[in-house]
Amino acid sequence: MKNKLIPWQEKPENSKEVLWRYSENPIIDRYAIPTSNSIFNSAVVPFKDGYAGVFRCDNKAVQMNIFAGFSENGIDWDIEHQPISFAPGNTQMIDSDYKYDPRVTFIEDRYWITWCNGYHGPTIGIGYTFDFKEFYQCENAFLPFNRNGVLFPKKINGKYAMLSRPSDNGHTPFGDIYISYSPDMKYWGEHRCVMKVAPFEKSAWQCTKIGAGPVPILTNEGWLLFYHGVIATCNGFRYSIGAALLDENEPEKVKFRSQPYLMAPAEIYELTGDVPNVIFPCASLHSMEEDKLALYYGAADTVTGLAFGKISEIIAFTKKNSF
Amino acid sequence: MKNKLIPWQEKPENSKEVLWRYSENPIIDRYAIPTSNSIFNSAVVPFKDGYAGVFRCDNKAVQMNIFAGFSENGIDWDIEHQPISFAPGNTQMIDSDYKYDPRVTFIEDRYWITWCNGYHGPTIGIGYTFDFKEFYQCENAFLPFNRNGVLFPKKINGKYAMLSRPSDNGHTPFGDIYISYSPDMKYWGEHRCVMKVAPFEKSAWQCTKIGAGPVPILTNEGWLLFYHGVIATCNGFRYSIGAALLDENEPEKVKFRSQPYLMAPAEIYELTGDVPNVIFPCASLHSMEEDKLALYYGAADTVTGLAFGKISEIIAFTKKNSF
Amino acid sequence: MKNKLIPWQEKPENSKEVLWRYSENPIIDRYAIPTSNSIFNSAVVPFKDGYAGVFRCDNKAVQMNIFAGFSENGIDWDIEHQPISFAPGNTQMIDSDYKYDPRVTFIEDRYWITWCNGYHGPTIGIGYTFDFKEFYQCENAFLPFNRNGVLFPKKINGKYAMLSRPSDNGHTPFGDIYISYSPDMKYWGEHRCVMKVAPFEKSAWQCTKIGAGPVPILTNEGWLLFYHGVIATCNGFRYSIGAALLDENEPEKVKFRSQPYLMAPAEIYELTGDVPNVIFPCASLHSMEEDKLALYYGAADTVTGLAFGKISEIIAFTKKNSF
Amino acid sequence: MKNKLIPWQEKPENSKEVLWRYSENPIIDRYAIPTSNSIFNSAVVPFKDGYAGVFRCDNKAVQMNIFAGFSENGIDWDIEHQPISFAPGNTQMIDSDYKYDPRVTFIEDRYWITWCNGYHGPTIGIGYTFDFKEFYQCENAFLPFNRNGVLFPKKINGKYAMLSRPSDNGHTPFGDIYISYSPDMKYWGEHRCVMKVAPFEKSAWQCTKIGAGPVPILTNEGWLLFYHGVIATCNGFRYSIGAALLDENEPEKVKFRSQPYLMAPAEIYELTGDVPNVIFPCASLHSMEEDKLALYYGAADTVTGLAFGKISEIIAFTKKNSF
Amino acid sequence: MKNKLIPWQEKPENSKEVLWRYSENPIIDRYAIPTSNSIFNSAVVPFKDGYAGVFRCDNKAVQMNIFAGFSENGIDWDIEHQPISFAPGNTQMIDSDYKYDPRVTFIEDRYWITWCNGYHGPTIGIGYTFDFKEFYQCENAFLPFNRNGVLFPKKINGKYAMLSRPSDNGHTPFGDIYISYSPDMKYWGEHRCVMKVAPFEKSAWQCTKIGAGPVPILTNEGWLLFYHGVIATCNGFRYSIGAALLDENEPEKVKFRSQPYLMAPAEIYELTGDVPNVIFPCASLHSMEEDKLALYYGAADTVTGLAFGKISEIIAFTKKNSF
Amino acid sequence: MKNKLIPWQEKPENSKEVLWRYSENPIIDRYAIPTSNSIFNSAVVPFKDGYAGVFRCDNKAVQMNIFAGFSENGIDWDIEHQPISFAPGNTQMIDSDYKYDPRVTFIEDRYWITWCNGYHGPTIGIGYTFDFKEFYQCENAFLPFNRNGVLFPKKINGKYAMLSRPSDNGHTPFGDIYISYSPDMKYWGEHRCVMKVAPFEKSAWQCTKIGAGPVPILTNEGWLLFYHGVIATCNGFRYSIGAALLDENEPEKVKFRSQPYLMAPAEIYELTGDVPNVIFPCASLHSMEEDKLALYYGAADTVTGLAFGKISEIIAFTKKNSF
Repeated sequence: MKNKLIPWQEKPENSKEVLWRYSENPIIDRYAIPTSNSIFNSAVVPFKDGYAGVFRCDNKAVQMNIFAGFSENGIDWDIEHQPISFAPGNTQMIDSDYKYDPRVTFIEDRYWITWCNGYHGPTIGIGYTFDFKEFYQCENAFLPFNRNGVLFPKKINGKYAMLSRPSDNGHTPFGDIYISYSPDMKYWGEHRCVMKVAPFEKSAWQCTKIGAGPVPILTNEGWLLFYHGVIATCNGFRYSIGAALLDENEPEKVKFRSQPYLMAPAEIYELTGDVPNVIFPCASLHSMEEDKLALYYGAADTVTGLAFGKISEIIAFTKKNSF
Repeated sequence: MKNKLIPWQEKPENSKEVLWRYSENPIIDRYAIPTSNSIFNSAVVPFKDGYAGVFRCDNKAVQMNIFAGFSENGIDWDIEHQPISFAPGNTQMIDSDYKYDPRVTFIEDRYWITWCNGYHGPTIGIGYTFDFKEFYQCENAFLPFNRNGVLFPKKINGKYAMLSRPSDNGHTPFGDIYISYSPDMKYWGEHRCVMKVAPFEKSAWQCTKIGAGPVPILTNEGWLLFYHGVIATCNGFRYSIGAALLDENEPEKVKFRSQPYLMAPAEIYELTGDVPNVIFPCASLHSMEEDKLALYYGAADTVTGLAFGKISEIIAFTKKNSF
Repeated sequence: MKNKLIPWQEKPENSKEVLWRYSENPIIDRYAIPTSNSIFNSAVVPFKDGYAGVFRCDNKAVQMNIFAGFSENGIDWDIEHQPISFAPGNTQMIDSDYKYDPRVTFIEDRYWITWCNGYHGPTIGIGYTFDFKEFYQCENAFLPFNRNGVLFPKKINGKYAMLSRPSDNGHTPFGDIYISYSPDMKYWGEHRCVMKVAPFEKSAWQCTKIGAGPVPILTNEGWLLFYHGVIATCNGFRYSIGAALLDENEPEKVKFRSQPYLMAPAEIYELTGDVPNVIFPCASLHSMEEDKLALYYGAADTVTGLAFGKISEIIAFTKKNSF
Repeated sequence: MKNKLIPWQEKPENSKEVLWRYSENPIIDRYAIPTSNSIFNSAVVPFKDGYAGVFRCDNKAVQMNIFAGFSENGIDWDIEHQPISFAPGNTQMIDSDYKYDPRVTFIEDRYWITWCNGYHGPTIGIGYTFDFKEFYQCENAFLPFNRNGVLFPKKINGKYAMLSRPSDNGHTPFGDIYISYSPDMKYWGEHRCVMKVAPFEKSAWQCTKIGAGPVPILTNEGWLLFYHGVIATCNGFRYSIGAALLDENEPEKVKFRSQPYLMAPAEIYELTGDVPNVIFPCASLHSMEEDKLALYYGAADTVTGLAFGKISEIIAFTKKNSF
Repeated sequence: MKNKLIPWQEKPENSKEVLWRYSENPIIDRYAIPTSNSIFNSAVVPFKDGYAGVFRCDNKAVQMNIFAGFSENGIDWDIEHQPISFAPGNTQMIDSDYKYDPRVTFIEDRYWITWCNGYHGPTIGIGYTFDFKEFYQCENAFLPFNRNGVLFPKKINGKYAMLSRPSDNGHTPFGDIYISYSPDMKYWGEHRCVMKVAPFEKSAWQCTKIGAGPVPILTNEGWLLFYHGVIATCNGFRYSIGAALLDENEPEKVKFRSQPYLMAPAEIYELTGDVPNVIFPCASLHSMEEDKLALYYGAADTVTGLAFGKISEIIAFTKKNSF
Repeated sequence: MKNKLIPWQEKPENSKEVLWRYSENPIIDRYAIPTSNSIFNSAVVPFKDGYAGVFRCDNKAVQMNIFAGFSENGIDWDIEHQPISFAPGNTQMIDSDYKYDPRVTFIEDRYWITWCNGYHGPTIGIGYTFDFKEFYQCENAFLPFNRNGVLFPKKINGKYAMLSRPSDNGHTPFGDIYISYSPDMKYWGEHRCVMKVAPFEKSAWQCTKIGAGPVPILTNEGWLLFYHGVIATCNGFRYSIGAALLDENEPEKVKFRSQPYLMAPAEIYELTGDVPNVIFPCASLHSMEEDKLALYYGAADTVTGLAFGKISEIIAFTKKNSF
């Protein structure tokens, strides 16, 4: 990431948290574009002088699609009113019943986008753009059913690497994080299990399912991965945010993983909405030099929130509270 | 409907919605009568100089029953403290374990009431009154299990016509709208499927179940039907409101049907309560001359809300956004 | 029923049962017509010098349909190779995704057939024939979901009467027997609950669901109704046969009902097949003068069996073992 | 209970309720101790000049444990930052995967604590303390699966008596209240069913499961028992509070039981949180002389609330509204 | 056990099994008494010159009860036609909605019977007899829900000891074996987990639930326990038989446990019947001197089978194939 | 396939079936090797002068593994007593909790084996052998959860091609057939949906799930694919056999597909066993010159059966009965 000012707000004085919320949350309202029912679980990335993003906007028919958007400061966003239109990339087969929960990262010469793609059920769609104007769609990475496909921001041992969570076709009451590799963004293999749900007694907030969140960040302690963890209460799923550190060269090896959550639903815009009690991180901006991290997350499957943290504190917390 | 002033509030200036909420919502509080736990999903109708209504009031034992009420302006309601007591109408069999979700309409010489009637499970109860003082109960229209029985406000081809939604005995994770006809309000037949749930990819807010709302309104584009549609999220059902236009003489033929919802849960009194994320329309008042519609809906199965719209805009929206 | 010889075989010497099986069971093999996968749950009726029947034959695509058949002795059957084709009766709407589990009875001037008719899910189809050559289909009796619609063989208080079991769209883990009346075989009403499932502790074989079997037989003790009762074991449903006596003029009143079953799956052709542990009665022939009854039943949803009993013994058993 | 001032606030002027909320609710915030995710479903008891308590604090790994706390006025609490550590009491076997939902009562010479104890699933843990500094753990009362074990505050007919609710290992969609007796707090028997869930038609708020709340209070009408009742809505469980009066010497005999609830979720801190729509009473303080009762309850499985009532009114209400 | 001839048949020549079936199986037919639908899961014990037994006979209403029976040779049984009638033992409370799956053992001066007793759901009933003529019923051992209560045939460390399997109220898709102790057959405590289901990968036949079978046999390797293990296939539960060796003085300690089953459903009377694919052992006779064991088991919840084995071989097999 | 005599038996005289059973079925007994509980769902292939096979043998701990076997005539098999031991092939990661349902085919220079491989749930394992003595295991083809991975017997457009059925971790009540391609047997992509379950009304035997059976056979009408189809009856799954013809060069295109099944469970060894009502084809031998096909199938998940057919008749039947 370049030396650009990222969104930031200092930690409140009496806070002891490693992640704290932006005081003006939510930063994107559910009705921010004319057709939208909700805007959440979206990706952002530094682009030119500012930032670009790929946003999940469900319209008022509750059809799920992804939209491009731009911002100068990473907080005020201008989201396009039409969903992204893809041209064929490395395939002619770009069927898509729906698109949601995008992630974006720059590798080598282009911005790669992954999302949950509707092809006879959810699986991982892949696309790329050079300019956020023209977009190209590639072969789906996997067979259905899968969700939360997240690329590493550089090749590992010469191959693209992607985290994902094998799922089912419904609300999926299970889910672990796997990694897969590809020489060419077309064929994928060398599938390995990375992290499984925690035992209820050890860490109940992540005992039902887990899934990768934003694109991992390379630190001197390995890959910093934010992920969501889910507990099934008698009144539904509750999504919280945790962190893990993966080995730099063999990211299927988990070095540390937070037993406590870093953040859990607590604000009214997280506790109420289309799906109450959900916070779901899909993107982050960071500055290693400034030790700053801005984490974007969907709240209640309805709006978009922003949280901040110091990378060094997050790493220290994760190492100290690992299990 | 007579030339009477119906409840009304102009559309907020920057609103683009076809239905907008009354700024003083909810108009009926959950504790509006001494025994009530919640008052919602209720019916209103012009009566004498003002309005009469039949209200679903669950008491604090959470027993469901229907109560008469009266209002001069359709907003401030005086609800009786005892539930409606029925005398036998066209039958001696007026067993009823519970009554809920009433609708009311005037046909020919009397006010007909339909409701979900507990007879070995939910089915459609029918009753009538001339004066909202004395009430008569008729044969149930159908075998259990059924809900959301809604009469057309006049005979069609010489027969009474009723929409309903075959259901099960529990929370019913499915449901389509059917029509049935009767020569005499006692025997019913000629059952036809009118509208089914939408495919998830096309209109997810109405992909789990749908059910007729208020009594249909005859317009020059056919019968205007408001209905509720349900999506099953991982944290429960979410009820929204849509509209359809049915053929005047063959109402089993759907001419238009809204792909987007017209209104979905968004206010705190809709997002929280006994059953969060529910808006459920059961009645409307309208004036064709003034192009005004006032829609009554239950919010969160707890309180009663009111929304407004212009009939011409609603029809235009439904035609334009049909699928 | 005319004074015709009905199928018969004396009770085995050491048997104490009120219903005993035909020693040559099954009387109809699963592959009795070229396309059939299974032939079961079928109806028979005296016709001309012998018998006619309407047979459920599932073909090898496991599509369910009904076929006419004829027999001289009620045991050896000649089933047609093409399913029954219906012309419109009292309606033009004769859609049918599938037809199964027929019953047949003669009323006044014609043979009435009822069956489970696929119209957006299972409901009760009605048809008639004068000659088992030409068939006419009427309006469905009820909204979906319903099964086991069984007509009484004569009008009661001037109206047609039908038993049925409201169901769901799947394998239906519940089900009670109701009665409905019609002045004209088109519109139905006056729905009453007749018999509910038994408490587990009282009669577990009929604690999950029950459904009417053959057309009821008028005796001097009222209507003799054979019905099936189901228990849900940890390895699936088990269907047995019971008997009840209903009031002649108010058949919604149960006079007696057998606590023990009369017959339960025990033979290898009942214990194994497409659906193991099912015996399902759909028709009977009887002679009051000779005190004989021949009961036809589907076995394991695969083949057709025959059982015999003395009417007087069955009535006595039902009265003595009532609960 | 000694003549000590218990927490109190007069009934609001226009309130007709028998239980009314403390205006400063919640009295304990979810983050009241550094590690806590939520503090709720906790027990309090008079102790020395003030009060002591045993608090359920789930930490941010969502591990459930119980913590000691102290208060001068019963409203402002000082909760310890480390969970209670138990030494062996009448057993060496003090395994515990988790502890939650404690109750406390003084019998003879010590304070007895019961809680839901994780031993191959939830069962009833028992411990005691003399001083809230040193704690001793005893044999579990029962085999798994059980919850809501509540001791009577004195021996009955020479034996300890405990209410409990046999459960399953998950969210338990059923549950009745039983009583068991013990001569020695080690071996338990003479199990009797006390109260079962209500029929849906009679009192739906308590139709899914019920469980004892605070330690019963001996009154001149028998034991006053507050309990929680649950209804399963389409969007999850809703927990309300009822009251019953049990026979003084044979507490398995229910003399009266409230058909309406006394209090149900209605405030925002009850309607939203980790588990919305839950109010769950676990403790009370009372003064017979002053006719005052202070009821502590968990709200939304997140925070702790306080409600007040007059004992005489509660008893009168329960007797008048019994079923 | 006395030096009496127990039922026996030598191992077939080419068999390599440690348990082999009696060639004349089933030894008790489903209709062996006039009212019975099935006779299975029953207990036998040496008595006077021959044997006595307590038999589960479900009648043709499928009500479950237990009946006394007698035999000279342990193979040909004379079962009474009326169920056992109990007088009050150590309690007046002898309610019982149903009784099934009995076990019998002699301790000190009498024969103790345990069974699954219907008291607001299944729990463990206890009774005793001196002569198999007069029977006395005691307090239920535990709260519901429980099944498979099996007493050890002598006191252990001065206390009665009982194995059981906490269950639910239905078909229970889980279940482990626990032990509890009692000083007096009235109050029970010191509950310990003995054996849990096996991981699917290690021993799938016992991965869903397990439960104690016959009364354990004291050998010089500890208590020999036969138990049933269940796997849930896509077509239902399959019950097989395994063996374990428990520590003589601390039977909650498992010394050895068979990874392979000793016997699984394979004969037609085990593969078909009221509940296919069930073999369920409830009793055994043995002679240490002759190294013989006769194992009684229910087959398909319909009939009673007998199998034989050499105790030394069974012990050796269990030790060799432990996991 | 070479000009070798394949197992064969002429069609019975009065049979009209396109597949008929071998009169000596089952050809492999459940106890054919000392440790086996069942032998079924296995693969065979011509090898040297006779045949080799890979057999699924579940042992008596019901652990699933695959075993090599050899036969001179394809009917009498000599199966090894130890499971296949794999050395690393194109990966070091050859973890496997279990192996089942193998398929085998020769491509270019070696025999490729695919099976359901336990790696954090079922997925598709791949291995190869040159001689059925030494075996090498490769990377799993896909992420979990998957079953029924079947290779085409030659490269298509230069790439390996594999059919599979995405599944879940349990008994999977859904399932369609997909195809994936690989340049190197390590990385897989270009996933396409090939065939979905049939609508209930069209072909109910294949309405719940379908999965590829033996390795497809190249004919002049395209690839002949036998597959299993499943219907969920109220008493469990029933597995039958169908056939399809896929385009030679674009096998994701289905040219024809049988609406009726070719064979369904009907013999006692198919109707009873560990999983009743299952026939499951995994392998075939054929001779184009002689127009003969021998189909191996597992029966009731217990034993192995053999069926025969004429390839020309099967193709004609599939084309004529397509839907």
